Amino acid sequence: MNQTFTVTGMTCGHCEKAVTRAIRQLDPQAEVKIDLPSGKVEVQSQQPRDALTRAIAEEGYGVAA
Amino acid sequence: MNQTFTVTGMTCGHCEKAVTRAIRQLDPQAEVKIDLPSGKVEVQSQQPRDALTRAIAEEGYGVAA
Repeated sequence: MNQTFTVTGMTCGHCEKAVTRAIRQLDPQAEVKIDLPSGKVEVQSQQPRDALTRAIAEEGYGVAA
Repeated sequence: MNQTFTVTGMTCGHCEKAVTRAIRQLDPQAEVKIDLPSGKVEVQSQQPRDALTRAIAEEGYGVAA
């Protein structure tokens, strides 16, 4: 299913990769699309939203409610 | 010898690591200190300044003259 997050603190392409990697560690099949300026992260994954939020937060980024 | 560069475009800790890694690929013995807000990069290395500048630039960052 498609899930959208607003992630704060991503400033560069490395940050995009770090967030993508964090999500893929949780779900290797996940499709991840990131728009850096807006912080919008679209994830195609069957993982529960809470788990995805936690993975992003543990990488050091903020996830807006 | 100690060489100081002003590097633009570093926005986060991943950028610091990317610049450090680029310098260490050129000179594995190099000591690198980075101040992110100012972009000041101090390198302790025997490599010529031109080569260090090129390594940083090839990683995608600007080096002020």
